[in-house]
Amino acid sequence: MAAKKLLILPGDGIGVEVMAQVRRIIDWMARKRKVEFEITEGLLGGAAYDVHGTPYPAETLEAALAADAVLLGAVGGPKWDDLPFDKKPERGLLGIRKDMGLFANLRPATVLDALADASTLKNEVVSGLDIMILRELTGGLYFGQPRGIDTLPDGTRKGYNTLVYTTPEIVRIGRVAFDLARKRNKKLCSVDKANVLECTVLWREEMIKLQKEEYPDVELSHMYVDNAAMQLVRNPKQFDVMVTENMFGDILSDCAAMLTGSLGMLPSASLGEADANGKRKALYEPVHGSAPDIAGKDMANPLATIMSFAMCLRYSFDMVAEADLIETAVKNVLKGGLRTADIMQPGKAKVSTTVMGEAVVREL
Amino acid sequence: MAAKKLLILPGDGIGVEVMAQVRRIIDWMARKRKVEFEITEGLLGGAAYDVHGTPYPAETLEAALAADAVLLGAVGGPKWDDLPFDKKPERGLLGIRKDMGLFANLRPATVLDALADASTLKNEVVSGLDIMILRELTGGLYFGQPRGIDTLPDGTRKGYNTLVYTTPEIVRIGRVAFDLARKRNKKLCSVDKANVLECTVLWREEMIKLQKEEYPDVELSHMYVDNAAMQLVRNPKQFDVMVTENMFGDILSDCAAMLTGSLGMLPSASLGEADANGKRKALYEPVHGSAPDIAGKDMANPLATIMSFAMCLRYSFDMVAEADLIETAVKNVLKGGLRTADIMQPGKAKVSTTVMGEAVVREL
Ligand SMILES: CC(C)[C@H](C(=O)O)[C@@H](O)C(=O)O
Ligand SMILES: CC(C)[C@H](C(=O)O)[C@@H](O)C(=O)O
Repeated sequence: MAAKKLLILPGDGIGVEVMAQVRRIIDWMARKRKVEFEITEGLLGGAAYDVHGTPYPAETLEAALAADAVLLGAVGGPKWDDLPFDKKPERGLLGIRKDMGLFANLRPATVLDALADASTLKNEVVSGLDIMILRELTGGLYFGQPRGIDTLPDGTRKGYNTLVYTTPEIVRIGRVAFDLARKRNKKLCSVDKANVLECTVLWREEMIKLQKEEYPDVELSHMYVDNAAMQLVRNPKQFDVMVTENMFGDILSDCAAMLTGSLGMLPSASLGEADANGKRKALYEPVHGSAPDIAGKDMANPLATIMSFAMCLRYSFDMVAEADLIETAVKNVLKGGLRTADIMQPGKAKVSTTVMGEAVVREL
Repeated sequence: MAAKKLLILPGDGIGVEVMAQVRRIIDWMARKRKVEFEITEGLLGGAAYDVHGTPYPAETLEAALAADAVLLGAVGGPKWDDLPFDKKPERGLLGIRKDMGLFANLRPATVLDALADASTLKNEVVSGLDIMILRELTGGLYFGQPRGIDTLPDGTRKGYNTLVYTTPEIVRIGRVAFDLARKRNKKLCSVDKANVLECTVLWREEMIKLQKEEYPDVELSHMYVDNAAMQLVRNPKQFDVMVTENMFGDILSDCAAMLTGSLGMLPSASLGEADANGKRKALYEPVHGSAPDIAGKDMANPLATIMSFAMCLRYSFDMVAEADLIETAVKNVLKGGLRTADIMQPGKAKVSTTVMGEAVVREL
């Protein structure tokens, strides 16, 4: 069996600390379950800029393309806020998503029983919540051309970006969405702004066509993005799988993540097109950011990154048993009462990043 | 003193019913406070399409431009869902916003004490909430050119819209935002996606410049739109005035409105540029939509439209005393225990649209 090639990109801020905990789990797997990974580490974002003068070094892309899966911590921080647009840490993240062709971003928003009270929403509104937001990740406003800032002859400046999708882009994310819905409750809600934006009129038309032609067994509904933001707050459990374009997905998935009250728990997966062997390029990362305010303090919650690694085992390496093991270990540690600061609740034990990582390994 | 010219556009769905309650208040004002309005009624949206074959008849625009203020119910409904893009009810709303130059959309999200429990968020998170979202309303993706759906030579289709802002557009909405902040707590949060979209890089630069040059007494902060959606859910009370571009404002203001749990209570104002006399073109409408599911059933909550009329008195006619009267009457009616279905709570009295309207008039 070929070695499992994993590229680890700790990135910036707490990315480094939380990734260290994942390394312990990988060590445990090598020791106890004889699973060997061939691991490379690379730089992305601010960390890469500091060393190479660019947030997105060529060797990082090369390593990413050579790997079976990429595990990312987080990028960004105030240290790099004043860099020019094309040197900012985010360019690294966006670059790697685009160049790896990671068009499908899976963002689950789930509420673990042990953590339902951490939400700002009433317990009955969010307990048991389990939705999957699928965000298109390599199109739309994020990458559309033309874009820029021009100075007009009269001195006025004009800033512009382009929201653009082609039918193949819509259809390929649509298929991932319908496939996900099929594996869950066969209900898909496509979010657009088809009453205002022609681009999303096309989106809606293609979703309707796809459902008719290829997924008649999945129930498809449509919702305007403003209403979707409302409905997520009003009654999030009405949703199962949601699919939407890049910018809307950025906003709605963060909103949904916060509904759970435990952002520090949520993993995500970004997948590319399946190759002839059904293999997809893939990058896994926590939903939370680099949290510069608590970086280096051994305070961050490593569970989202650990859960991202579990997702990686499940989707990229078909190691379902191991993924289950990790997820169960995380749940048990929480049941046992350990909490990092972000999910701290009265009567629980507040622990550091390191102690939380140790606890998961011990539970394994 | 010149007559106060008010154009009333009931629009579609519950728009008609809720506006009927406002008419009663206007009658009361004529009877009891000798305030005479010169009222015209017009058609917009689906109702206009049914009569004129267009959602946006020329005479409606004419009447709107001649009026001192416009009061709108709501537009849209499934009846017109299958019309071509340019005949849909929304075209009427977008057309009138653009042609009246209503670039500044004020959307307060406030929680009345009597209704804090109606929110899906925990009481302590939302009680006393009072934020003002200022949404740019005539620029950005909603109106940017080029836009459309093209068929490429190979048969692929491409849908596109343009997110575009010029410096004057940003500065004029910025001024309204800073002025609002000055009248409140001198804190303004500008929401953008400056780490990804050049258009909003320009937005941020102009906001910074404006603060330095004209509003050094107002504290300006910046937040990315995804984080703003999160923070609204996590801790909405951290905000006071927020300003953002059209599409982000559409999403965030609906999210914020839903936090209050009483969408049926929220008014909004859309203002144009001040003329030589300091007068602004203005349109007032409830935040909620046309709610086709309950239209015609005498169930809708008329209070948002009544509160929109109060806003109209306050901003367009300087009738502060009368605006206060109406707002107090609404609060008292709620304190008295009357509720329409949407804000019904245990132990309160459920009443119809008409009874709620009557109650406000009686309280006055
Ligand atoms: C850091 C930023 C560019 C990124 C995005 O907007 O996609 C982040 O917010 C995310 O959601 O992964
Ligand atoms: C009906 C629709 C065009 C409109 C908008 O998107 O502006 C509505 O959602 C609003 O917020 O007033």
